Amino acid sequence: MTESASTPASRGPGMPFRPADATVINTIRCLAADMVQTAGPSGRAHGACAGRAHALTRFLRANPSNPRWNGHACCLQYILLHLLGYDIALDDLKRYRQLDSKTPGHPESHMTPVVELIAGPLGQGIANAVGLAMAEAHLAATFNRPDAPKIVDHYTYVILGDGCLQEGVSAEAMSLAGHWKLGKLIELYDDNKIDGTTDLAFTENVCQRVEAFGWHTLSVPHGDAIDQSALVAALAEAHRVTDRPTLIKVTTTIGFGSSKAGTDKVHGSALGVDDVKRVKQQLGFDPGAAFVVSYTVRELYAAVRARGQEAEANWQRAFEEYKNKYLFLAADFERRAAGRLPDGIREKMPTFSTKDAPAATRKWSGQVLGILGDLIPDLMGGSADLTSSNRLPGDGQRARRVRRSHGMAAICNGLAAHGLVRPFAATFLNFITYAYPSVRLAALAHHRVIRARAPADETLALLRATPNLWVLRPADGNEVVGAYRAALNAPSIPVALILSRQAVPVLSGSSAESTGRGAYVLQDVGNPAVALVATGTEVALAIEAAALLDEFAPRTYHESVLTPGVPVVAVEALGTIGWRQYAHAVVGMRAFGTSRAPDAVYAKFGITKEAVAAKANEVIEYFKGKAVPNVFDRFE
Amino acid sequence: MTESASTPASRGPGMPFRPADATVINTIRCLAADMVQTAGPSGRAHGACAGRAHALTRFLRANPSNPRWNGHACCLQYILLHLLGYDIALDDLKRYRQLDSKTPGHPESHMTPVVELIAGPLGQGIANAVGLAMAEAHLAATFNRPDAPKIVDHYTYVILGDGCLQEGVSAEAMSLAGHWKLGKLIELYDDNKIDGTTDLAFTENVCQRVEAFGWHTLSVPHGDAIDQSALVAALAEAHRVTDRPTLIKVTTTIGFGSSKAGTDKVHGSALGVDDVKRVKQQLGFDPGAAFVVSYTVRELYAAVRARGQEAEANWQRAFEEYKNKYLFLAADFERRAAGRLPDGIREKMPTFSTKDAPAATRKWSGQVLGILGDLIPDLMGGSADLTSSNRLPGDGQRARRVRRSHGMAAICNGLAAHGLVRPFAATFLNFITYAYPSVRLAALAHHRVIRARAPADETLALLRATPNLWVLRPADGNEVVGAYRAALNAPSIPVALILSRQAVPVLSGSSAESTGRGAYVLQDVGNPAVALVATGTEVALAIEAAALLDEFAPRTYHESVLTPGVPVVAVEALGTIGWRQYAHAVVGMRAFGTSRAPDAVYAKFGITKEAVAAKANEVIEYFKGKAVPNVFDRFE
Repeated sequence: MTESASTPASRGPGMPFRPADATVINTIRCLAADMVQTAGPSGRAHGACAGRAHALTRFLRANPSNPRWNGHACCLQYILLHLLGYDIALDDLKRYRQLDSKTPGHPESHMTPVVELIAGPLGQGIANAVGLAMAEAHLAATFNRPDAPKIVDHYTYVILGDGCLQEGVSAEAMSLAGHWKLGKLIELYDDNKIDGTTDLAFTENVCQRVEAFGWHTLSVPHGDAIDQSALVAALAEAHRVTDRPTLIKVTTTIGFGSSKAGTDKVHGSALGVDDVKRVKQQLGFDPGAAFVVSYTVRELYAAVRARGQEAEANWQRAFEEYKNKYLFLAADFERRAAGRLPDGIREKMPTFSTKDAPAATRKWSGQVLGILGDLIPDLMGGSADLTSSNRLPGDGQRARRVRRSHGMAAICNGLAAHGLVRPFAATFLNFITYAYPSVRLAALAHHRVIRARAPADETLALLRATPNLWVLRPADGNEVVGAYRAALNAPSIPVALILSRQAVPVLSGSSAESTGRGAYVLQDVGNPAVALVATGTEVALAIEAAALLDEFAPRTYHESVLTPGVPVVAVEALGTIGWRQYAHAVVGMRAFGTSRAPDAVYAKFGITKEAVAAKANEVIEYFKGKAVPNVFDRFE
Repeated sequence: MTESASTPASRGPGMPFRPADATVINTIRCLAADMVQTAGPSGRAHGACAGRAHALTRFLRANPSNPRWNGHACCLQYILLHLLGYDIALDDLKRYRQLDSKTPGHPESHMTPVVELIAGPLGQGIANAVGLAMAEAHLAATFNRPDAPKIVDHYTYVILGDGCLQEGVSAEAMSLAGHWKLGKLIELYDDNKIDGTTDLAFTENVCQRVEAFGWHTLSVPHGDAIDQSALVAALAEAHRVTDRPTLIKVTTTIGFGSSKAGTDKVHGSALGVDDVKRVKQQLGFDPGAAFVVSYTVRELYAAVRARGQEAEANWQRAFEEYKNKYLFLAADFERRAAGRLPDGIREKMPTFSTKDAPAATRKWSGQVLGILGDLIPDLMGGSADLTSSNRLPGDGQRARRVRRSHGMAAICNGLAAHGLVRPFAATFLNFITYAYPSVRLAALAHHRVIRARAPADETLALLRATPNLWVLRPADGNEVVGAYRAALNAPSIPVALILSRQAVPVLSGSSAESTGRGAYVLQDVGNPAVALVATGTEVALAIEAAALLDEFAPRTYHESVLTPGVPVVAVEALGTIGWRQYAHAVVGMRAFGTSRAPDAVYAKFGITKEAVAAKANEVIEYFKGKAVPNVFDRFE
């Protein structure tokens, strides 16, 4: 569970144990059991987080009537969001895991608007939270001024378990959080025993490992106890230590109160009717009643809600005061919050002509990104192991060098979810497979992340097969400009730019404008005998091959791009999957690429202008006097 | 660099510093500089590992004249393999990174037969090594007997750097190595300062982190020193500690001796002619000569080679002695070493009839794997977070529960490379994206790994686009048997089985035999009006849809499976990419799947028998009186 809150005015262990706390915690436990039981056989009982989630509400400053102001979430989150008064009704809790309900089995922001981050597979949440905390630190450094109220000042909380820590992506992100000294990141580690006992596969000393990352750690031994003083005291201590992130290890029992407590049976399935009754009895609740929320609980959370509303009102006043002193900064803050780009970007983008020297598209990308970086202060990004290779601007402030592709991608998702920064990430395409789980989540969560990638292989098929992900493989400098323009103006989706390390010429007729349309005719001839289709570095090659043909031509979208009756030859120095639906012949790679010079690889796989021209002539010959199957003549 | 060696008879810091050692180390440094310089602008100078690689030869027992006996390798490995007398000539070193040379930029076992593991992207080598060490521990427990010579007894060495440790996959694998107490795994961590200085992005306390994993750690401060006493003493100490893996932190300078020493310029590019001369001068070598290997060096390594030959001869004698006592065990060892399966498996496989109850294909998979596990002692596998979900046999000895998908996949590659075990791995298909970098390496390295996977999405496009990877999605129990048979008999390639959690009936006409052919006609009719094509759980649905059609039929391979002139409707409850090359209409999912019940998801996306029948009728109507484009009428 990831939660953001403005810094509370006062905090500390001074808050005593209140009897209402017990009622709340047990209510959450019972609601969780009811939801899982109602959802069917394969739900997951997450009541174990009840204590931690409730303790956090002592520090929360969230205003449910304006979910955009703040509030991120995850597993127990539906119950908490309901209790806090967000737009999730008790009936939504009853529809847990039903198709198209607001409360799916894995939170999804497009189903539940108040959920800003998708929990996703294990380990992603931690890395997302590092992104949120990093965004806060960066924005605080950018906007806060000593002589004005702090307008950026919040903590990021994570509730996590063994499974999250076992996934490598969490190690990558936590190591970076330690390195960046993200002191306002607080993680509550749920040390329960899942999958039989975790000891079967997980015996490491978590606190020692996390301290090695440069973190501060605390332990709370009896995490299931109703008296939350120790937990609240630990949270208060974590808030005081601001030079390092804090991990609080909370020892708990999974399925607390159930006959299956401490076993993996609680993880993969509902407790069963009888066991749910047993849990309720043990907790002093009516075993016959389900989905019960008492007035005690409602009142306690109404107070949390009121505090959140007051906090937002205070922030609005503070922002007005800030705005009087720092007009331009405040305007930039408001522009970012509204999701607008600064004015005048389009005019400042370069255009390239055929007289310009050939260059690698990643070099043009570096140039464009450099200009964009000056114009758009929200751009913030990282590069995995290739600052020099990927030609990123050398702005140490915003372009961080990170060798952990997966952690970086997941952190970018957190940055994007924060809303006031626009993340980009660069790596070698091969490494995108390290990062893909996070790329997929970005697509699912509609995160606005630009990913610039260097050379390539079968991974492209995966990217193209991913819903909500735009994949652009520009052919020259103008198309690079067009690709960035499309990426910046894209609705909330991640965009992948596939860039080359080989130099390619600027192409006559290439267009930043048309690039955003997905496909266009670069070289038109009268009456085509064959259409050559290509992307990226192979476009220049296709044009050279065309010059070697007796007759040639593509013409006018869809059928205007690919004329029916004209055989199509696709050229892409990558895997051939996916192209056969558009083409009658595909020139590409039918085995893994190699780490040798591109020219030699291209020659090996027959990706040369001569080979393409020869193939095109053979295709023309093959279809002479025959009907050319119309690739678009499909029913769907 | 991963090296295996039998346990040396004697070891310890007692081995004094020899002047020849300096000559060897400096020769390796100069050869590395020469190779990178010859290869062109973007090579990598890995001379920094020279000291560690040479120190290891004191412990090596490898026989170059029989590379199958032992000897794994990586970055500096070509030089070492050359010096040790493996089939890599000085001329091969000169052809470093040239197309189709024996010495590509990233080692590949199919290019260089003596290289048994592909280094691959960062972090993979460590996890592979954990697999090698795990195979050794498992085989030692299986074969060694107190009253006979040890026939399995070797160490696994890894040379690694900061980049390897930053990738999460190494954390996953190292945590498991600590958990499994793999005491014969020794890692030499090269603490140099890469990418500017590593401090820019990597400040964690590596030894503390690794100790948290349950490892033993040692430090050698002056790793570049020519006097290797400290390094050799640390290695000896690491050999003595056999209850935990050991990490030896060796502090070094990247590009030692170069004017670029300690900068990231050494990582991404050659030193340049002048700097190579400078390095040679500093090391007391002739700056005008390249690729020089003196007699001193040749003689020292001849002794290592002789020791390896003697070690193999000793092992052969020991094995004969062992065989006299343990005939059956020895026969099983020899069978495994020859890569043969035990006899009589085919006869013991179950067949299923339409009278059998419907079941999830993952349930049949569990049943088949259970039988195979009893018949094939070499089978060894793990499951990520789904022992109960994935229906694996509950053999605690061989089926390990591991929640780290990527680490698990990479460890399986190490297990497969060891040669005497046949690894399988199971996880949810979604998690395969966590593990994909290792799956890809398995395909590249031709590792024999079976991966059983549960429910699915666009990831399938990636798997199908991966060269050398077989993807099988069985439709019922008989096809599950067929899929395992195909996987076990596959040439050295990884196989992915995509299994369902939904129950499906046993299909009339389903065949274990035909499953291995990739596609077959399940239900034949006279004169087809439309062909329904499906995989996995959608086959039963397609057959039901066929019964709703007035006329129906698929017929006889390639065109015999898909008759020209008959429109094709493909049904797969997954992404539609890739199917359009075979089909005139595709029924599938055009957005991300959800975590809800399959029935509800299928209804949402129109994947029901009624919807498929309706679509088929519409397709027939659409093509009535029109030519149906022949999807196979392509030139290629």
